Amino acid sequence: MPAFSSESISAARSHAADAVPLALGIDIGGTKVAAGVVDGHGVIVEELRRVTPGRDARAVEQVIVDLVAELGSRHAIESVGIGAAGWMDLDGARVVFSPHLAWRDEPLRDTLEAMLHRPVLVTNDADAAAWAEARFGAGQGHSRMIMLTLGTGIGGALVLDGKVERGAFGMAGEFGHQIIMPGGHRCECGNRGCWEQYASGNALGREARELAGKQSPMAAALLAAVDGRAEEITGTVVTDLALQGEATSKELIAEVGDWLGLGMANLAAALDPALFVIGGGLSAAGELLLEPARRAYSRNLTGRGYRKEAAIEEAQLGAAAGLIGAADLSRARR
Amino acid sequence: MPAFSSESISAARSHAADAVPLALGIDIGGTKVAAGVVDGHGVIVEELRRVTPGRDARAVEQVIVDLVAELGSRHAIESVGIGAAGWMDLDGARVVFSPHLAWRDEPLRDTLEAMLHRPVLVTNDADAAAWAEARFGAGQGHSRMIMLTLGTGIGGALVLDGKVERGAFGMAGEFGHQIIMPGGHRCECGNRGCWEQYASGNALGREARELAGKQSPMAAALLAAVDGRAEEITGTVVTDLALQGEATSKELIAEVGDWLGLGMANLAAALDPALFVIGGGLSAAGELLLEPARRAYSRNLTGRGYRKEAAIEEAQLGAAAGLIGAADLSRARR
Repeated sequence: MPAFSSESISAARSHAADAVPLALGIDIGGTKVAAGVVDGHGVIVEELRRVTPGRDARAVEQVIVDLVAELGSRHAIESVGIGAAGWMDLDGARVVFSPHLAWRDEPLRDTLEAMLHRPVLVTNDADAAAWAEARFGAGQGHSRMIMLTLGTGIGGALVLDGKVERGAFGMAGEFGHQIIMPGGHRCECGNRGCWEQYASGNALGREARELAGKQSPMAAALLAAVDGRAEEITGTVVTDLALQGEATSKELIAEVGDWLGLGMANLAAALDPALFVIGGGLSAAGELLLEPARRAYSRNLTGRGYRKEAAIEEAQLGAAAGLIGAADLSRARR
Repeated sequence: MPAFSSESISAARSHAADAVPLALGIDIGGTKVAAGVVDGHGVIVEELRRVTPGRDARAVEQVIVDLVAELGSRHAIESVGIGAAGWMDLDGARVVFSPHLAWRDEPLRDTLEAMLHRPVLVTNDADAAAWAEARFGAGQGHSRMIMLTLGTGIGGALVLDGKVERGAFGMAGEFGHQIIMPGGHRCECGNRGCWEQYASGNALGREARELAGKQSPMAAALLAAVDGRAEEITGTVVTDLALQGEATSKELIAEVGDWLGLGMANLAAALDPALFVIGGGLSAAGELLLEPARRAYSRNLTGRGYRKEAAIEEAQLGAAAGLIGAADLSRARR
């Protein structure tokens, strides 16, 4: 007989989370810097946003210092986690390469610890978001979760047995750069046929612009939404129209869903996760994206019929996942 | 200052391995059953082979019992590991599905433990081979290794931090079924465009037969090797000719190497291993395969130039890797 009821265990856990010190998470995007004070339940106590001051690394560091000073004046922040797009070293000390910022092999952790007088952890934004979903969001209770953040490209991370799997050199989780169409669309990474050229918000926008450029009558509603300026059609424009029920936009999202499902089936062949969590801007399309994705996943999964299939779910924490995860990961530095 | 020199540590390790009890590994293939008594160094003390008695599960079990009786009469075997193609459950108890044998959701471990009076572990043959290479072969000293066994298809396994990563449901490592060419060649798994249809011994044979079927003068040496019977050209025939320097056969192997490298780049994008180990029948082609594979890998790797690249090495344990790994894994059951 258990000594405690599940209610009392859950209350005890909750008390343990109450005792966890506050951490600050900072998500550095190409256009804005979001900072949030996060408690032991993954709840944001206070959040601030700033415009990203261009690509100048020193200016970005100053924004971080200002945010910590302001939020630190109101909250007892014991550690700081920084999430950004790019490759970080395995120790959480160094930004190896950041696509949107000027950091190149930059010892950001030591620089910031000296400025902030607190333990600092530097992490990839997709890893941070996945960690947040695994610990506080859609992934709770699953030992093997893959998170896909669909936006400009595909951010990815694998959470295995309560740890983000970073690979031998810190570069794991670049799922968007699996080549699924040799000789296909050119990718920013230099290759052709990368998955993110087929299953991202950018891919959706490109396909819609191409359709509109053909003067297809099917693109009438899309063109009307941008006053006839085909070049202004983005993934967000298509998603908004689709959510209003526009047929062509729904078709275009379903096509992206087909590619999404195929790539997930590839990941499942390799990694056999229990759960895929889909986040990022494109996930706003909800079931318009996920229903075709699930169908394509099941259709392309090797061993279908003989195996258990991973669930495919929407992310729960939205755009804040990155800063929540970065904050929580930084606690390990204390 | 270290208390021991590296020589004395290595001697101590060696003594520890001497004290490990003997285990029996049995590799059940489509045509033969190989059994070997394996010591703590991964060395085979004695090996026996039998013809696989068709697909009849009871007959295969009887062969296993006979092999254990015979080898057990000469060696103090304390556990038995069974490796076979197919999907095993996470506990090493049950064969979920085996392509070449009649086992379907078969509780093979319990059945055999009752018959053999020893602890038994049931494992996938590719997982077993990878474990052997990681522990005693090419993978020693690497925390993250992917093994690819190139034969009929592509057997695969990922060894992470000293453990074979099996996934949430025991189906991880089916790398050969990542789809790299949507709409491409049909695969036995039911899909089209699986990697193993492009980068396996079977793929090599198919390409060579197709060339020979076109009556191409380029295929003259290949046709001569099979007395003009194009349908008898296999991957092994091509590999043997290539090793003798025949130009077309070398080209065909290089094409397979190109596909091999592309698929490995996809796996590196996702998993960022330190090492790929290439085994299986096709690996007999050696550098004729690996040199183009390394080139294609580097050419298709996302982030090339900014990242450390995994090494790509030949397996060291040959066809015995499966039984050595199965034997060693079975020790955990004691």
